Amino acid sequence: SGFVHIKNPHLDSMEEDVLYHLDLGTKTHNLPAMFGDIKFVCVGGSPTRMRAFAQFMQRELGLAGAGEDLPDLSAGSDRYAMYRAGPVLSISHGMGIPSISIMLHELIKLLHHAKCRDVTIIRIGTSGGLGIEAGSVVITDTAVDSSFRPRFEQVVLGDVVVRSTELDKELAEELLACSREIADFPTLIGHTMCTYDFYEGQGRLDGALCSFSREKKLEYLSRAYDAGVRNIEMESTAFAALCGLCGLKGESCQFYLL
Amino acid sequence: SGFVHIKNPHLDSMEEDVLYHLDLGTKTHNLPAMFGDIKFVCVGGSPTRMRAFAQFMQRELGLAGAGEDLPDLSAGSDRYAMYRAGPVLSISHGMGIPSISIMLHELIKLLHHAKCRDVTIIRIGTSGGLGIEAGSVVITDTAVDSSFRPRFEQVVLGDVVVRSTELDKELAEELLACSREIADFPTLIGHTMCTYDFYEGQGRLDGALCSFSREKKLEYLSRAYDAGVRNIEMESTAFAALCGLCGLKGESCQFYLL
Repeated sequence: SGFVHIKNPHLDSMEEDVLYHLDLGTKTHNLPAMFGDIKFVCVGGSPTRMRAFAQFMQRELGLAGAGEDLPDLSAGSDRYAMYRAGPVLSISHGMGIPSISIMLHELIKLLHHAKCRDVTIIRIGTSGGLGIEAGSVVITDTAVDSSFRPRFEQVVLGDVVVRSTELDKELAEELLACSREIADFPTLIGHTMCTYDFYEGQGRLDGALCSFSREKKLEYLSRAYDAGVRNIEMESTAFAALCGLCGLKGESCQFYLL
Repeated sequence: SGFVHIKNPHLDSMEEDVLYHLDLGTKTHNLPAMFGDIKFVCVGGSPTRMRAFAQFMQRELGLAGAGEDLPDLSAGSDRYAMYRAGPVLSISHGMGIPSISIMLHELIKLLHHAKCRDVTIIRIGTSGGLGIEAGSVVITDTAVDSSFRPRFEQVVLGDVVVRSTELDKELAEELLACSREIADFPTLIGHTMCTYDFYEGQGRLDGALCSFSREKKLEYLSRAYDAGVRNIEMESTAFAALCGLCGLKGESCQFYLL
């Protein structure tokens, strides 16, 4: 059918669904009118970048009002920022798995309530690279955890549930083909490692705490490289798991920022 | 000595320390001049609320410029917002453990570089309550994980390291005593459960995914209550672990928002 899958039997019996962190709701907003024609959702950590991306899309698509300020559709909440440019929705998700998870739960319900069809979602974020040229874009085939396993552990009522973190292979190839049409745009497909921590979790030597040597750090990163990891960030496993479960065609691309 | 403890032998040999996500650094900013007299740091999720809190402190302390706009000291970064009112620093940390961890690593290094002494840090956030009156404030004695254990699991180079999540008991009692000087200000000391997820992790029935019944949810929350948990949020275990390790006198208080 092309609709997103909500896997929650309680939702149908709710009189109102308030998407708290987006400051939207089924009784306060006409979601099908506001969002029914959305076909692409792009998400990234920073609200400023996601506004800039929406403005870029508006120019690229030749839409009326290009160059003007875009309204933040989640203006009543300071948790996330949301902009649209034609069929493209651009939303920030903050940093880390818990932050992107809250946004994705509410976004997926938004797409459901708005009766959107055939939606593609792409994470456009930043990352640290592993054995690749700075400025490269990594298109994730599989997101892996800090032990290089293709899985996301979700705690549900205190129990651990393991979820798959595969992303859409066809979409990955399509995006790679697009990148080849642009000169000097180094792009590759690889595994992306997702951690819960930026400093100790990613082997950085410049946090407030660091108990390991440079050698131990390099040994860990070299094992990650051998396992197919080409970059490291903090959201991809949860993103892949939620998109997969809800039938959203999803891809995660990260720019390796030196 | 009253200084914060940086437990990172690599830091001394670094020529420059850039606090990326705060947009501050040891070469670009005179950190002792800017922050050396800070005695209290208050942190919370929302940037808007942390600005409002700094403005409130400015009025309460009778400082010059009260009522005027406060500059965001991290204005060059949209990851966090930071304001000061006299000896009080007010910083937002976003949502979830990964987001607060990045901020705390950089804040702790900031306090170190600025040579701050005897700093008290208090998290003032929101939470869901458990068997308590809506509008209550819970002062955390111990932060616990989703299995009600007083521990924080930090992954360091792929290995799990377990850290203590006790908070400053004296400070908790002091804050409780303060609350009693205010009429109609229900406040209690209790355990705070910290989860990695807002919907499935906290037993909510209104996420995009929900695989459990209302009965299972209530059974889990009742077990949490029996273990001493009085509220649920998403940052306290990492906050307690990092403050404890770095010698920061820390407390976490959350307002139970219905």
